[in-house]
Amino acid sequence: MPAIKALIFDVFGTVVDWRGGVIRDVTQIAQARGADIDAARFADAWRSDYRPAMDLVRQGAMPWTKLDDLHRRTLDRLLEDSGLAGLGESERDWLNRCWHRLDPWPDVAEGIRRLKQDHVVAAFSNGNVSLLVGMAKRAGIPWDCIISAELFRHYKPDPEIYRGAVELLSLAPSEVMLVAAHNDDLCAAADEGLATAFVCRPGELGPSHLSNLTPAREYTCAPADLTDLAAMLGA
Amino acid sequence: MPAIKALIFDVFGTVVDWRGGVIRDVTQIAQARGADIDAARFADAWRSDYRPAMDLVRQGAMPWTKLDDLHRRTLDRLLEDSGLAGLGESERDWLNRCWHRLDPWPDVAEGIRRLKQDHVVAAFSNGNVSLLVGMAKRAGIPWDCIISAELFRHYKPDPEIYRGAVELLSLAPSEVMLVAAHNDDLCAAADEGLATAFVCRPGELGPSHLSNLTPAREYTCAPADLTDLAAMLGA
Repeated sequence: MPAIKALIFDVFGTVVDWRGGVIRDVTQIAQARGADIDAARFADAWRSDYRPAMDLVRQGAMPWTKLDDLHRRTLDRLLEDSGLAGLGESERDWLNRCWHRLDPWPDVAEGIRRLKQDHVVAAFSNGNVSLLVGMAKRAGIPWDCIISAELFRHYKPDPEIYRGAVELLSLAPSEVMLVAAHNDDLCAAADEGLATAFVCRPGELGPSHLSNLTPAREYTCAPADLTDLAAMLGA
Repeated sequence: MPAIKALIFDVFGTVVDWRGGVIRDVTQIAQARGADIDAARFADAWRSDYRPAMDLVRQGAMPWTKLDDLHRRTLDRLLEDSGLAGLGESERDWLNRCWHRLDPWPDVAEGIRRLKQDHVVAAFSNGNVSLLVGMAKRAGIPWDCIISAELFRHYKPDPEIYRGAVELLSLAPSEVMLVAAHNDDLCAAADEGLATAFVCRPGELGPSHLSNLTPAREYTCAPADLTDLAAMLGA
């Protein structure tokens, strides 16, 4: 294991259960409005527009747009054809912020606490800064810093965000480890010389989870979860 | 008092005692090397080049340079004519990082802890990200996020850094309060519509401290220290 000084964590899926959190809040608002909504299907449809929406920005077809605003754009479209088409502005805003109210996986609190003792631990996400700050405050995740795509105006897996994170940390790429549950993210980090930890999160996509179950290439390590990673790093 | 959602804190002088920390580490290395150095004078000379060095960047005479590197440039010059001219690279690097090892004023731990409960609390400093992260880890300051001049490649009091902070927080300027001990910083923030809290730190510059003892204009509030600010904000 190389000498790692900073750990940067992918957030959606790796640190927090986005699907469970979105289902919870869609269910709550549907029940309050007496609407008949398949909340799991709604959550999956919302997330399925995540990559295409960011790709519009990455390819220059849209100017820089915060993830909160990309989420809202998709939400408004999904609501049109749903039993929640009548939601007003404040309810839409509340629902859109469900992405700020996601719960961490059970191993996160102990894993981050241990890893933080001797390493810099940072959120490293396509989420905008205020989203990541709100999420961390609610969930009690004690990040040392927030490294968001918003700082570079480049979404993952653009190389600029990996290079930018290394530069902000004033470290060599090999001293920085990306912890993530997704092969595309890890491959882009490895291409920039970062260390990589693949954490499989089979619950991320619900019962139909079929992707990212195995490493696509040889990473620095493949811990079972964040407490296992802490043990591997002697924390 | 307006509804404040985020507090952004100037760091050097407002949150930490830079002069005491620099004197401590200069004294330590001078004693270890048997050198006769006036550590207080050394600290004051080092800091006196802070504004001129940043102004070279602000005026475009130098490309973007991290504060760590501006500090090192000044340090190397000061060492030339001192009893520590023979310091090697690792000792120079250690000494230059004294700016990462500064101690907070006595009211900071309780003040930030209380303010953090219902507000976003962020470092807002000309220090580079890794400097601010290292300092916060050592001193146990639980920032929600680190907002550094490095993110915008603009040093205070350039307007871009105040506007940039508001944008990253996804708030209106009036919902963000700058907490600082320096009138130039507070005036620039007020000009951008931010709320302002003037905290007098008469110990910052040592016995010859004569500046920033009174507010230069009417700020939102002028608490005695951070616990007083917490009380004013009902925290």
